[in-house]
Amino acid sequence: MKVDIDGLMETCRVRCNQRLAELSFAITSYSETTAAHISEFQNANLYSLESGGKRVRPTILYFAAQCVGGAGGDSLDQIACALELIHTYSLIHDDLPAMDDDDMRRGRPSLHKAYEESTAILVGDGLQAQAFELLVDAPNLTAEQKVRMVKLLAQAAGMEGMVGGQYIDIQATGTDMTLEELKAMHSMKTGALIRASLALGGIAASATEEQLAALDEYGTHIGLAFQVADDILDVEGDPATLGKTQGKDDEANKPTYVKLLGLDGAKAEAQHLLEAALEALSGFGESADHLRDLARYIVERDH
Amino acid sequence: MKVDIDGLMETCRVRCNQRLAELSFAITSYSETTAAHISEFQNANLYSLESGGKRVRPTILYFAAQCVGGAGGDSLDQIACALELIHTYSLIHDDLPAMDDDDMRRGRPSLHKAYEESTAILVGDGLQAQAFELLVDAPNLTAEQKVRMVKLLAQAAGMEGMVGGQYIDIQATGTDMTLEELKAMHSMKTGALIRASLALGGIAASATEEQLAALDEYGTHIGLAFQVADDILDVEGDPATLGKTQGKDDEANKPTYVKLLGLDGAKAEAQHLLEAALEALSGFGESADHLRDLARYIVERDH
Repeated sequence: MKVDIDGLMETCRVRCNQRLAELSFAITSYSETTAAHISEFQNANLYSLESGGKRVRPTILYFAAQCVGGAGGDSLDQIACALELIHTYSLIHDDLPAMDDDDMRRGRPSLHKAYEESTAILVGDGLQAQAFELLVDAPNLTAEQKVRMVKLLAQAAGMEGMVGGQYIDIQATGTDMTLEELKAMHSMKTGALIRASLALGGIAASATEEQLAALDEYGTHIGLAFQVADDILDVEGDPATLGKTQGKDDEANKPTYVKLLGLDGAKAEAQHLLEAALEALSGFGESADHLRDLARYIVERDH
Repeated sequence: MKVDIDGLMETCRVRCNQRLAELSFAITSYSETTAAHISEFQNANLYSLESGGKRVRPTILYFAAQCVGGAGGDSLDQIACALELIHTYSLIHDDLPAMDDDDMRRGRPSLHKAYEESTAILVGDGLQAQAFELLVDAPNLTAEQKVRMVKLLAQAAGMEGMVGGQYIDIQATGTDMTLEELKAMHSMKTGALIRASLALGGIAASATEEQLAALDEYGTHIGLAFQVADDILDVEGDPATLGKTQGKDDEANKPTYVKLLGLDGAKAEAQHLLEAALEALSGFGESADHLRDLARYIVERDH
C-alpha cells in the first residue's frame, strides 16, 4: 500500500495550526487607549505564523511520540507550537536585511517587508520567549519532563545550535568550506532543532534513553538530508512551488552541497543519508513507519 | 549608620560577574578547522557581557532572596546570570539601527558597531536561549521551582513584558502619550524584568505567596521609579558618568516623564514611587533593608 505521507503531514499540520490559532498574541497588559499599536503587533505575530508553513518540526514531534508508543496527547500540540515558534522566529530574523536579506518567505513578503524592520526583530524575540512559556505550560507533563525539554530546546535554539549555525553560515558566505564544515554548520543551523523535535516527542511519550538515542541518530541523518534536499531544490526547484526565491544560494555565493559534490553527488549523498536514517530506526517496529516515510519524503519532496 | 549601598551593589556585581566569567560562549559543536569564526562569535558574546554593567537585576535578585530569609546559595548566581543575559540581549537589540539606533552603550561602541549587525542580532538571540538553559541548570532547585521561574522569565521577557514594551516605545516615538500610557509602557519594557528578578529571588529562597505579592508590589514601584530617574538623568546627568549619549530621548522625540510632568514634577513622582515601594515592604523586618536602600539608590543615583 502506498503511504499517504502528504495526508499524514497535513493532519499534523492542521493539528499544530489549530493549537497555534488558539494562542493569543494580544498584549493584554497595556492600556486600552492605544489599542492601535497593540493590534498591529498582534497582526505581525499572526502574519508570521499563518498557515503557509509545512510544520515539519511539529510533524517530526508527533511521529517521534508515536514511534516510542506513547500518546503524549494534548501536551504534543503545545510542544509542537513551541517548536514552530522557535523555527518561525529564526526565519524572521534570518530574512532581515543585515542577515540573509530575503524579501520573500512562503510566497509572501517577509515580515520586515510587510511590517517594519523593528517589528520583525521584536516579533522574533517575543516568539522565542513565548516558546519557552508554552513548553512549561504544556499539560500532562511532569516538572522534570518540562525542565528537560526547556534545556534541550534552549540548547538547540542557542549558540551551540541554530543561532551558532546561522552565524557560521553568514560568516562563511563567499568563502570556501569543506564538506565537513558544511555538515557541521547545517547540523547546528537546521539539524539541532530537528533533533530537539524528536527528543521532545520522545520525552513527552516517556521514551527510554535507548529510544532517545536512536531518535537522535535518525535526526542527525534526516537533518542533513533535509539540507541536501534544500540545496538540490534551490537549483532544480520550481519557484512557484518553493514559495521563495530560487537560485538564492548561488546568487549569495553560499557554500552548498551541490557546489561541493555536484548535483549527482548531492543526490547520492541524500540517498546515503536516507539509508542511514532508516538504519537508525531498525530497532523499532511498525510504530516508526511514519518516521521512515518522512525520511523518504524529505529526500524526495519537490518543495 | 550610613548604608554603603554602593559597596553592597558592588558585592552583588562581583558575584554575578564571577559566575558570568565562568560561562562558556564557545561553540564546541563545530569543527575546529574554522576556529576563527567561532572565537569571533565568542568574543562578541563576551564583549556584550563585559563588566561595565551595574548588574541591577542580579542585585535585586540577591536582595529579594535575602529579604524572605532564604539563602538561595549557588542557584542565585546562576539565576542572576540568566537575568543579566536577558537584559543584555535586550540592550543589544534595542541599540540596532532599525530600533533605537544607538552607537554607544556603557561608554563603548554598541555591539553592532564593534562587530557586524548580523552578529549583534545573533548574539542577542543566543543570549536569550542561554538564559533559559541557565535557569533550568541552576543547582539546588526543584524542577517545580525551575518550571515556575522559566514561566515568569519568559513572560517578563516576552510580548506581554519587555518585548511588547519596546515595541510600544518605538511606535510611540514622536507621538503624544498620556502619563497612564507612559507608565504602562515602562512597566512592560523595564518593570517586567525587575519584577521577575524579585520573583525569582523569592522563589529560590522559598518565599510564601504573600511575600511574593509584597515583592511584586515593591517591584512595580521601583520599576517605574527607575525609569523616572532615567528620564531625569537624561536631562540632568553627566554624559561621562552616564556612559551613554545624554539628551538622546529629547533628540529622538521620545515621550518621557520629564516632558509630561516637568523636571520638578518628575522628581516628585520619583519620591512618591519611593515611598510606595517602602510601604510595600512594611511587612518585612530588617531583612528587607537592602531592598529599601536599593529603592532609595534608584531614585537618588547620578548614573
